[in-house]
Amino acid sequence: MVKKYIYADNAATSKLSEAALDAMLPFYKDIYANPSQLYSFSREAKKAVNVSREIIAECIGAKTEEIIFTSGGTESDNFVIKNAIFQNWDVVTSMIEHNAILKPCEQVKSLGGSVHFLNVDKNGIVDVSNILNKIQNMHGIMSIMMVNNEIGTLQPIESLIKFAHDNNLIFHTDAVQAVGHTHIDVKTLDIDLLSASAHKFNGPKGVGFLYKKRSVSLYPLLNGGGQELGNRAGTENVPAVVGMAIALKENVDNLLNTQIKLKKIECILLDSLLKKGVNFIRNGINHLPGFLSLSFPGFSGEQILHRLDLKKIIVSTGSACDSNNTQISHVLKAIGLDDDVAKGTIRITLGRENSEQDAIEIANSISSILKNMSIEKYNNRS
Amino acid sequence: MVKKYIYADNAATSKLSEAALDAMLPFYKDIYANPSQLYSFSREAKKAVNVSREIIAECIGAKTEEIIFTSGGTESDNFVIKNAIFQNWDVVTSMIEHNAILKPCEQVKSLGGSVHFLNVDKNGIVDVSNILNKIQNMHGIMSIMMVNNEIGTLQPIESLIKFAHDNNLIFHTDAVQAVGHTHIDVKTLDIDLLSASAHKFNGPKGVGFLYKKRSVSLYPLLNGGGQELGNRAGTENVPAVVGMAIALKENVDNLLNTQIKLKKIECILLDSLLKKGVNFIRNGINHLPGFLSLSFPGFSGEQILHRLDLKKIIVSTGSACDSNNTQISHVLKAIGLDDDVAKGTIRITLGRENSEQDAIEIANSISSILKNMSIEKYNNRS
Repeated sequence: MVKKYIYADNAATSKLSEAALDAMLPFYKDIYANPSQLYSFSREAKKAVNVSREIIAECIGAKTEEIIFTSGGTESDNFVIKNAIFQNWDVVTSMIEHNAILKPCEQVKSLGGSVHFLNVDKNGIVDVSNILNKIQNMHGIMSIMMVNNEIGTLQPIESLIKFAHDNNLIFHTDAVQAVGHTHIDVKTLDIDLLSASAHKFNGPKGVGFLYKKRSVSLYPLLNGGGQELGNRAGTENVPAVVGMAIALKENVDNLLNTQIKLKKIECILLDSLLKKGVNFIRNGINHLPGFLSLSFPGFSGEQILHRLDLKKIIVSTGSACDSNNTQISHVLKAIGLDDDVAKGTIRITLGRENSEQDAIEIANSISSILKNMSIEKYNNRS
Repeated sequence: MVKKYIYADNAATSKLSEAALDAMLPFYKDIYANPSQLYSFSREAKKAVNVSREIIAECIGAKTEEIIFTSGGTESDNFVIKNAIFQNWDVVTSMIEHNAILKPCEQVKSLGGSVHFLNVDKNGIVDVSNILNKIQNMHGIMSIMMVNNEIGTLQPIESLIKFAHDNNLIFHTDAVQAVGHTHIDVKTLDIDLLSASAHKFNGPKGVGFLYKKRSVSLYPLLNGGGQELGNRAGTENVPAVVGMAIALKENVDNLLNTQIKLKKIECILLDSLLKKGVNFIRNGINHLPGFLSLSFPGFSGEQILHRLDLKKIIVSTGSACDSNNTQISHVLKAIGLDDDVAKGTIRITLGRENSEQDAIEIANSISSILKNMSIEKYNNRS
């Protein structure tokens, strides 16, 4: 029998839920109407979009009309940050954001806007102290990711929101790695704007949403037709929206069980590495369950990745968001890793499809790969 | 037996090609990898994206690297027009563009940019005479749609491109209604930028592309990861991109046959209306085959739509792109229709699924609906 892949790169993308695909298919086959039209054939498509919006709103504690469908996390993030250009906002963000935040921020700066980057501590926790003296006269937005996509650190989001609001800043969070994986109630947290991407929580690719508190005004990034209450133009992607809602509800309904399961698999993986005597550093703190950023000092993360690949085990390197770029990731730099340690980093992100057996196999494979690499290094020296 | 719908609103959206859906499914089920990753599991997804790009490029005579995948026509249009904000461009466009062009243009204006709107003649042909004295010192872009989405008029695109280039303007065309329905060779035409949307040519919703000539520089609308050669960030929507390519190739391969078929059905429809003694005006000129904008003076297009709907015949009103808006469409105004005529307009857009029998049924139904409406009007008067 051909060995199946052990997929442990769920932070890059996740397997589409079967229930989600089943729910999508009728809208690809028969119910293909444009939901914005006036005739009866559109009614079912329109209803499906509305019901999906209700389901998603409920999953994060939002009101239905506060959910704006987009083409994914990158669009949601750009939608928010580019408003700094349109509305002349100051931006406060962190050094460890995803490029979907950092690159729009660079654009804001290049067009004359003001952007302040907050440092993080060695665990990736955002530090607001270096902004305190500058923040008084700011008018704009603070954007901090909920879970970092490279090290899995959950931010102390409540205190960051309080800090933003105390300083009259709108608070946005890139929650692409968090939605569907940790409990979120936007009302309790008092979040103003939140970005999400379906394919990170077992939904389809090419769709996501932006939660926008009713009191916040944004210029559309995509202007045109009156869809999404005028917030985002373009024919509604009905099948994808339906799939996203089903996938999110499935994940949220099973959240606690999945978290317990992933925490257990994660422990088995770490224990197995320790028992094998593997020397590693785990990056970050307060991790999302199943999220492991591991550095093996003196080794190449990329080489480990490729050798695991040969054993049909799929992980990514530290710089996963931009894997064609072989420079050291800005996140690992920001948490102060030495180059030597940063280069030896891999990211293992377990998902609901993974088993305890997977964890043992991953650990054993890493251990044997590192042993072989050590032997090769030794032989090459002599 | 329950009567099936006669779907004649293909300009709003079209039925997904079965071959396209079949090609998409493996990428929803098993080949779900993020194509931007380094491991072997990504290879097939990455290859599928590349092959899709080649297919699409070939369909419009472009080079592979000139195709940028987007979430649809609205994103492609906004991508282009918002560059006027980022690059300080003057914009020249027409009064009859889709709102995905007009609304971004309004935003450009509201942020201090210069936008000039060209008039059209009574057939919807763009008239460049009112810009001649202003155009000398312009630096920017001219954006004119290839086929109007309300009246189906094909623009004399060659002469517009020549005019733009003679005046040092980049030429963009919103070809959302044209791609897959009329022959396009971007190199022969010397087009700089072209927007397309998959669901208008029997592809899936939520995906489209922008053709960008290599020599043209655009700031990304979506910044972030390095996807699409740095032109458009966001995890590639692999299944949708694959479906789009299959659908476009299918349409382009059968283009002539479909055009002949649609032209014939269109003639039967018009003949049947005439034979029944129905009084109507056909709007536009040089139409896309199967595209009929018909005005019935003295009647309400919306009422005709709803009564056709009761007979399971699906058409739209003149203002289809924004059907929740009951004002008279800006296109029908621009071609100089009296309010009374504009209000009585419906749009019938035939597609490859339609038959000659459909045309006869549509004509007969319109005829009997108008008769009944006349009788009701007469009775209400007395």
